[in-house]
Amino acid sequence: MKPNFSLRLRVFNLNCWGIPYLSKHLADRLKRLGDFLNMESFDLALLEEVWSEQDFQYLRQKLSPTYPAAHYFRSGVIGSGLCVFSKHPIQELTQHVYTLNGYPYMIHHGDWFCGKAVGLLVLHLSGLVLNTYVTHLHAEYSRQKDIYLAHRVAQAWELAQFIHHTSKKADVILLCGDLNMHPKDLGCRLLKEWTGLRDAFLETQDFEGSEEGYTMVPKNCYVSQQDLGPFPVGIRIDYVLYKAVSGFYISCKTLKTTTGHDPSGGTPLSDHEALMATLYVRHSPPQPNPSLTHGPAERSPLVSVLREAWTELGLGLVQACWWTTFTGYVISLGLLFLLLLCVLAAGEGAKEAAILLWTPSVGLVLVAGAIYLFHLQETKCFNKARAELQHMLRKAREAQNLGPESPPALHLGQQERDRAEEQ
Amino acid sequence: MKPNFSLRLRVFNLNCWGIPYLSKHLADRLKRLGDFLNMESFDLALLEEVWSEQDFQYLRQKLSPTYPAAHYFRSGVIGSGLCVFSKHPIQELTQHVYTLNGYPYMIHHGDWFCGKAVGLLVLHLSGLVLNTYVTHLHAEYSRQKDIYLAHRVAQAWELAQFIHHTSKKADVILLCGDLNMHPKDLGCRLLKEWTGLRDAFLETQDFEGSEEGYTMVPKNCYVSQQDLGPFPVGIRIDYVLYKAVSGFYISCKTLKTTTGHDPSGGTPLSDHEALMATLYVRHSPPQPNPSLTHGPAERSPLVSVLREAWTELGLGLVQACWWTTFTGYVISLGLLFLLLLCVLAAGEGAKEAAILLWTPSVGLVLVAGAIYLFHLQETKCFNKARAELQHMLRKAREAQNLGPESPPALHLGQQERDRAEEQ
Repeated sequence: MKPNFSLRLRVFNLNCWGIPYLSKHLADRLKRLGDFLNMESFDLALLEEVWSEQDFQYLRQKLSPTYPAAHYFRSGVIGSGLCVFSKHPIQELTQHVYTLNGYPYMIHHGDWFCGKAVGLLVLHLSGLVLNTYVTHLHAEYSRQKDIYLAHRVAQAWELAQFIHHTSKKADVILLCGDLNMHPKDLGCRLLKEWTGLRDAFLETQDFEGSEEGYTMVPKNCYVSQQDLGPFPVGIRIDYVLYKAVSGFYISCKTLKTTTGHDPSGGTPLSDHEALMATLYVRHSPPQPNPSLTHGPAERSPLVSVLREAWTELGLGLVQACWWTTFTGYVISLGLLFLLLLCVLAAGEGAKEAAILLWTPSVGLVLVAGAIYLFHLQETKCFNKARAELQHMLRKAREAQNLGPESPPALHLGQQERDRAEEQ
Repeated sequence: MKPNFSLRLRVFNLNCWGIPYLSKHLADRLKRLGDFLNMESFDLALLEEVWSEQDFQYLRQKLSPTYPAAHYFRSGVIGSGLCVFSKHPIQELTQHVYTLNGYPYMIHHGDWFCGKAVGLLVLHLSGLVLNTYVTHLHAEYSRQKDIYLAHRVAQAWELAQFIHHTSKKADVILLCGDLNMHPKDLGCRLLKEWTGLRDAFLETQDFEGSEEGYTMVPKNCYVSQQDLGPFPVGIRIDYVLYKAVSGFYISCKTLKTTTGHDPSGGTPLSDHEALMATLYVRHSPPQPNPSLTHGPAERSPLVSVLREAWTELGLGLVQACWWTTFTGYVISLGLLFLLLLCVLAAGEGAKEAAILLWTPSVGLVLVAGAIYLFHLQETKCFNKARAELQHMLRKAREAQNLGPESPPALHLGQQERDRAEEQ
């Protein structure tokens, strides 16, 4: 590879708002999206909320001349809604489905049924290995009383872990998607601190979008205020994040968003704005890892965010335990009530009422049993994530207390580069 | 690192048969297991079927002087049953829960409730990065009519993918566990072909165990023939598999198993035999990848096993689709019946019977709905695995048709080493 090597990467990301029958003007929006993607010919187009596989197949057919490679990430009952179109061949692909993703009985929210996931594509571009991740985390339905906060933090941790463990040989890492988190939210900070990914919006030399940064939802669109959900206009929840390793440097030349219209000035492509980033990858000498080279352990941002996440997941765990205890009581009382009904049915006094109440009571016990099992599993998932966080917290503290030059500091993000240099 | 570098690794693996209250002599067996592990002081002890976290905590306490690092992999309703004890510090850890793992309504088999998973530990030993995986796949309850075959093949594929994507920077890869597959079973071949892992039993220079290889269950043990399950004595389902990359070579010096007794000649430690392997890691020049350097594409073992797995998962998919159709009909008929009951309840003729039948009918529709959703999710998982297999099949064919020397051949296992050489 030549020393003046430079690779340009044009990336498109959009949450498509593609709920069949419910999302407005879906067919028209998908048609215009396809036309736009064909016209622009990005290197990669990463889409979220393409809930229907038929819509993916429509786009695949429409885009196949410009984007010969495409993949739809299937999971859950409905599907993850994630898909990708690439101008370059996809070498490898896999996905990870988040173990915590809301509650099946919150049917009106529906996230549980989607099987929210992160998809990974490995591309080889001009001799570089590019790991591209696309994801969509659990929605935030109320910022004031966010019952899914702990689940979203756990998802952010799983996402960070998946990226960390699957990208060790990648030269460039790219993550696009709808994180459903504000830039300073715990999950977002955890993800960035643990993986070292940088935010295109904060790093770009040239941003073109609305004044407040970019809007999550088009300001001047045909969706009503009610459709906008709890997010005020001007809050970022869609991201392009990136990182280069092993002697490369990546920068965001331009980041452009739609601003309440489709790119040609018509009605919007979705209830989210599209992101269009132009990235450049160049050779660079290895950089020190900023998380590990300054300040004592207790003050480091990584240690602090790991501890914060551990605490937040602890609150989620308490809630999950409360539910297992509550449903446990309901099951016990239900079984006692069933016993009482048996006694009554054997007698004469309230035989008919007892028989009539038998089936609903059995139903109650079964439903409570299912909810009990669900929350028992939830406690296992929280405990699993907390154990991993605790382990890494201990390791991060050890590494930092021993100083940046000592061997244990190697195991947090920096070790690969250092080992490569040693060999 | 010196050219005559050599690392000895002593590994212990056992499926502990640790069902609280049901497994015989559990407390006594765990005590003797702890004593034995302390006495032998292996580098790593990997255990399956430690279903109770209390049992793990008991072992952790007992083993802490010899094995300061330990981890219990939590998942599902019950837990994965996997745990590990290590003489060396664990640098990083994570896990992947299999997306297909039996059926929740097969309560008497119970695998679904366990959340079967693969756990990963990253260790740094004498400057080497060692990725250790421990897993336990879905049980086989009947070899003649194995309704879980497609799920187990899907698990083997997910395991292979997880190892492939998380071990790209590892120098040595080690997989131990109960795969619930015979050595020549499809899932086992798929795993070995895709990851390049080698079987310690076939590779060792010195095997010490029973004559038929090693037995899955002790021949002379206190469990009855009924406890043995469908496996005849002499069938291997527990494995130690390994691989070295990036210029290292690993060999199995000795593989020893228990032979129907505990190592000191007493009653067995479990209903499985323990495996004890002594492995040596040395420097070595890069080896060619045997899967890719001989024969035309159609005859290659990798292409053939990928195609076989794709077909097997297709059969699983047909079965899952049959269930969604069947439960779809049950739901429709149930709803029609409910409508009929409403009409009858409104009239006079069969009012009481209609009211009495209402709740069980609602229950039937709900249960059918839950089973429908479960199998719909199952179809998504099968489709996901098949899409990945199809993608890799296409890539493997492309690579092999273009010959071992051409660039596209690089992306199947060999690419990392070749890239490292180029740079």
